Amino acid sequence: MRIYLAGPEVFLPDAGALADAKRALCARHGATGIFPLDPVHCPAADEAAEEWLAIYLRNETHIRGADALIANLTPFRGPSADAGTVYELGFMRALGRPVAGYANVATPFETRSRAFLGASVRPRPDGTWEDAEGLQLEAFGLQDNLMIDGGIRAAGGPLVVRDVPEEGRWRDLAAFEEALRLLLNGR
Amino acid sequence: MRIYLAGPEVFLPDAGALADAKRALCARHGATGIFPLDPVHCPAADEAAEEWLAIYLRNETHIRGADALIANLTPFRGPSADAGTVYELGFMRALGRPVAGYANVATPFETRSRAFLGASVRPRPDGTWEDAEGLQLEAFGLQDNLMIDGGIRAAGGPLVVRDVPEEGRWRDLAAFEEALRLLLNGR
Repeated sequence: MRIYLAGPEVFLPDAGALADAKRALCARHGATGIFPLDPVHCPAADEAAEEWLAIYLRNETHIRGADALIANLTPFRGPSADAGTVYELGFMRALGRPVAGYANVATPFETRSRAFLGASVRPRPDGTWEDAEGLQLEAFGLQDNLMIDGGIRAAGGPLVVRDVPEEGRWRDLAAFEEALRLLLNGR
Repeated sequence: MRIYLAGPEVFLPDAGALADAKRALCARHGATGIFPLDPVHCPAADEAAEEWLAIYLRNETHIRGADALIANLTPFRGPSADAGTVYELGFMRALGRPVAGYANVATPFETRSRAFLGASVRPRPDGTWEDAEGLQLEAFGLQDNLMIDGGIRAAGGPLVVRDVPEEGRWRDLAAFEEALRLLLNGR
């Protein structure tokens, strides 16, 4: 099984080391990990005039060629997961293939959103909260926006959440390995 | 053409009014707007034990039944667009159908990310910036994470960006209407 490894670790200075570590775990479990930065045959990307578009087209080619996807949903610069990772999760779910997720922050989404918004949140009569502009905070006890949890649930995939000390959250792979194991061995 | 109207305005207290306004603009241009909260035939959702899962399943059914999607990519609680909207954009792109986007904040993604991170950003030798943990900031001059701009570009769709005064950014529909017009009439 070829597994696309979606996540914001592409932005790390040692992204290659993380890629190697994730690929090694995949191999140990009998699968092949595909990192977004891996080379791939994509003529449209080779012809693209803009680097960012070439990167996009290669990532899309990687995902279309993979059998499954594991998303690193650790919150990234805000209450939610990295936007590129979320896009890729939705993309793979639409292809109807298995998806899994993991996060190294276990605080629920609503709590993270409240912390992010600070003193500006206000209670609504129904017991939920809204921000200073009146936009509601999701209050379902989920890991992230319900489309993220929902896509994984609808696909029958695992969503593994662990609380990792902040300084280790971009490199700790215990939750990744557990999501990988559950994805491969069923739930 | 049936167009799914993805965006965080579902969280507004007057979401129904926004839905009506977007549907009216679609009708004026000869299309049918589908709002995430619209009723839809979805037996799996009717049988779901959890409300959030029912919402997810109905949204997925809406998207699968639509011919195109317009995403409200106005930044939401952080530098990027709403996570649910981004998931839906990736989902529709994977289905191979037309997608469009609009945003009522014109500040580029890199600038928004730098503002979000504040004094903790550091320059890298290559001229880009990284956050306090060493994760790079995308520096392509795009509206959002390159997967978002890339998905719309790859689909040949419009991405309309306008700078709207902050207090009007959740309800101003000029950029939405321009994206709608371009989506329907070609670029």
